[in-house]
Amino acid sequence: MDKRLKNAVVGQSGGPTAAINATLAGVILGASKAHSEGKIGTLYGMKNGIDGLQNGMIVDLASFFEDQAKIEALSSTPAAALGSCRKKLPKVEEGGEIYDRVFSVLKENNIGYFFYIGGNDSMDTVAKMNAYAQKIGYDLTVIGVPKTIDNDLVGTDHTPGFGSAAKYIATTVQEIICDCAVYTVPAVTIVEIMGRDAGWLTAASGIGRIVTGRAPDYIYLPERTFSMEDFMRDVRTALDKHPNVVIAVSEGVRFADGRYVGEGTQSGALDAFGHKYLAGTGKALELAVKAEIGCKVRSIELNLPQRCAAHLASGADIEESLLVGETAFDRALAGLSGHMMAFERVEGEEYAVRVVSNAVAEVANKIRYVPDEFICKEGNNVTDACLAYLLPLIRGERKIAYKDGLPVHCVIG
Amino acid sequence: MDKRLKNAVVGQSGGPTAAINATLAGVILGASKAHSEGKIGTLYGMKNGIDGLQNGMIVDLASFFEDQAKIEALSSTPAAALGSCRKKLPKVEEGGEIYDRVFSVLKENNIGYFFYIGGNDSMDTVAKMNAYAQKIGYDLTVIGVPKTIDNDLVGTDHTPGFGSAAKYIATTVQEIICDCAVYTVPAVTIVEIMGRDAGWLTAASGIGRIVTGRAPDYIYLPERTFSMEDFMRDVRTALDKHPNVVIAVSEGVRFADGRYVGEGTQSGALDAFGHKYLAGTGKALELAVKAEIGCKVRSIELNLPQRCAAHLASGADIEESLLVGETAFDRALAGLSGHMMAFERVEGEEYAVRVVSNAVAEVANKIRYVPDEFICKEGNNVTDACLAYLLPLIRGERKIAYKDGLPVHCVIG
Repeated sequence: MDKRLKNAVVGQSGGPTAAINATLAGVILGASKAHSEGKIGTLYGMKNGIDGLQNGMIVDLASFFEDQAKIEALSSTPAAALGSCRKKLPKVEEGGEIYDRVFSVLKENNIGYFFYIGGNDSMDTVAKMNAYAQKIGYDLTVIGVPKTIDNDLVGTDHTPGFGSAAKYIATTVQEIICDCAVYTVPAVTIVEIMGRDAGWLTAASGIGRIVTGRAPDYIYLPERTFSMEDFMRDVRTALDKHPNVVIAVSEGVRFADGRYVGEGTQSGALDAFGHKYLAGTGKALELAVKAEIGCKVRSIELNLPQRCAAHLASGADIEESLLVGETAFDRALAGLSGHMMAFERVEGEEYAVRVVSNAVAEVANKIRYVPDEFICKEGNNVTDACLAYLLPLIRGERKIAYKDGLPVHCVIG
Repeated sequence: MDKRLKNAVVGQSGGPTAAINATLAGVILGASKAHSEGKIGTLYGMKNGIDGLQNGMIVDLASFFEDQAKIEALSSTPAAALGSCRKKLPKVEEGGEIYDRVFSVLKENNIGYFFYIGGNDSMDTVAKMNAYAQKIGYDLTVIGVPKTIDNDLVGTDHTPGFGSAAKYIATTVQEIICDCAVYTVPAVTIVEIMGRDAGWLTAASGIGRIVTGRAPDYIYLPERTFSMEDFMRDVRTALDKHPNVVIAVSEGVRFADGRYVGEGTQSGALDAFGHKYLAGTGKALELAVKAEIGCKVRSIELNLPQRCAAHLASGADIEESLLVGETAFDRALAGLSGHMMAFERVEGEEYAVRVVSNAVAEVANKIRYVPDEFICKEGNNVTDACLAYLLPLIRGERKIAYKDGLPVHCVIG
C-alpha cells in the first residue's frame, strides 16, 4: 500500500432499509475510481458502525473494486451488509474514551475520509466526528449520506430508502385491495404502516389513487390528531358506499391527549403472564370497529418487510442511492466535510434530481413532517399534490438476480 | 350464438391466492381454443361463485379470447377476479331452492360445462353439482380445479397457489434474516405463518437452508404438539450460538391439551373495551420469550400478503396453474366429469409434473398433512427431504407488467 495515500472508511448506522447497501455500493464505486486514479489507498468498511470501529472491526472492501457482479448483488441486498449500530457519541466538548479509541483506529489505518450512511441519529455522529477531528487537529474529511425509510430528514427532497419502502407499501396495498374485493360481505381491513413521527410511508399507501384508481378509503397520518369518533364516522360512510373497506393508518397516530392509539388497548389488557400489553395501532382499531360496528374486520401490520423487501425495490431509489454514495465520495475528495448529502428536485415536467449537500449541524436531530398542503382538510386522506410528489420515487423496477427461486444476497465478512 | 353449441361456465371459490386467476386464464385459453374449433359457444364467468350463479350473476368472458395481453394481466393479478364465495350446498338428496335456481340459470344459458376453481370446500360443491345433475338428468360436465395456498388437498402432489405463497414466505424470511443480522444485541424474531391445520407454508420458510445456507433456527408445524418448555430450550440453545435468532411458527400450533398457542394470551387478556382478545401465535410467543428470557424480541405476522403477493409469484406455480386450467377444459370436452384435476410428480432427476385427475368424491373434505419423513425427529424443524420436495415449486419468476411503479392488475366487470 502506498503510505502517502490516505485511506477511507465507510459505515452504516441506524435501522435497515432496502437501499442502504446501494448507497454503500455507490461509495465503493467512488472509492474504486479514486483508487484507480491514485487518489486514495483503499476503502475500509466498519463492522457495526462506529461501535465496531472503536474496537478496530474494519474490513477491506477492495475486493469489490472492479467487480460489477458483486456491486450489483450488494445493491439488491436488503439491510446493512456491514452491520449497524445505535450508538450516540458523547458531546464533543466532553470527549471521552470512545473518541480516543476511534481516532486511534483511524490513525493506525491512515484513514483520512470518513463516510457514514444513516438517518437522524447517524447525522449526529457525523457532526460530532467532524467537530472532534477539528478539535484535536486530525485531518479527517467527514461526510454523512442519508438513508431512512421514514423520509423525515430535513434539507433533502426525500431520503434514499424511502422510495423502496413506499413502493412496497403501495404495491402491497394494491394486492390487499384485490384480496379484499373477492367477497360481498361487508368487511373492514386496517393496514398499519411504519412511521412513528412522520406520515410519509402511510401517505404512500394512497399512490394507487392516481395510477390504478384504487386506494384505501381513508388514510390517517400522525401529523393529525386522531379522533375515534371521526374514524367511526368515516368507516360507516365507506361501508355505505361499498362492502370492502380498506383503511391505512400510521403506527404513530395519537389521540388529542397525546396517547398513542395503540396504547388504548394497553390500558386494560394483560397478557398470559399478567403484563401490560401494547397491541399496536391496527389491532386497537380492529377491536374498536368490532365493538362499535360489529362487521367483519381484520388488521394487517406490514411490519419489517416495509424496510427490507429488496426484491421489490424502487428502481429510482436504488439508482439515486448509488448516485448519492458515489457523489459523496467525489465531493469528499474535492474537500467537502461536515456535510450531509441531499437531493434537490429539479423544476420541470419530467422528474429529475440533483445531488447537493447541507452542513450536517443544520440538519441533524430535526424531523421533516408531511406538510399541510399534502393532507386533505378533513385530515383523513392525502392530497393529489402529495401523490404527485410521491409517484416518481417508486417508479422503475430492479432486475433482481435469483438462484433456485430466491434472490441472491451479498454477505460481507 | 350457435344454439346447438353448449356454453361453459367457470367460477372461483374460497380464499384468494396469487395463482387462482392464472388457473382462470388457463380455463379461458381452453375455452378459446374450443370456441375457435367450433366445440363450444362461449365461456361465462360466475360472479362470486355459486352464490352469484344462483342469482344469474354471470359475465361473458369472450372478450379474453385471443387477447394475449388480457390473459397475461389476468395471470398476474392476485385474488379472484370473478369474486369468490363461501357457500356450502345442501345435501344432494335433500335438494332445495338453490339447486333449482342454479340449474335454471344453467339451462337458460345453455350451459353444459361447469368449472369450479377452489379448495376443499369448493370440491364439495363440485361433487354435489355433479351428483345433482345426474339425479335430475341434466347433461352437465362438472370439473373441479384445485387451488389453495395451504397445499392440503389429497390426491395431488401439490396445489396451484401454494408455490407462490411458498416463494413469498421463503423470500421474505430471507430478507428478514438480513434485517435481523445487522445488530449485535441478542434478539429473537418470531415469524408467524399461515396454515391452521397443515404446516406446508411454514415448512417453506426453511427453503433457504438448501439454497443460501440461511434459514430460521427452528420451525414449528401444527403437525407436532407444541411444548413451551421445549420451545424455550430451543430459543436458549440458538441464542448461545448467535445473537440474531429467527423462529418460524405456524399460526395453527397447539399445546398437548388442544388449545392453540395463540389462545394462551386470550385467557387473561382484555382489550380496551373489556373483550377477550386472541393475540395470535407469534404475539403469544413474543410475550412468552420476553417474560422468560427477557431479551429483545419481536413477532411478525406475515398475514394476507402470503396469499396475494402476486408481484413475487412463483414462475413454476403460474405456469402450472395455467396448464391445469387449460387441461381441465380439454378433459371436460373429452367427457370427464365429477373429477378434480391434480398434479403427479414425474420420477426423475429433473422436476416435472403431469396433469391427472381424481374422482372428486374421493378427495373432497379431506386434509393432507406434512408427512412424518418431512419433520425432524425433535419436531422443531423440517428435513432435507421436505426442502427437496418444496424447492422446485418456488422456482422461476414471472415477468410482471408495471405502470408508474405499480403492478398492472386485471379487473373483470
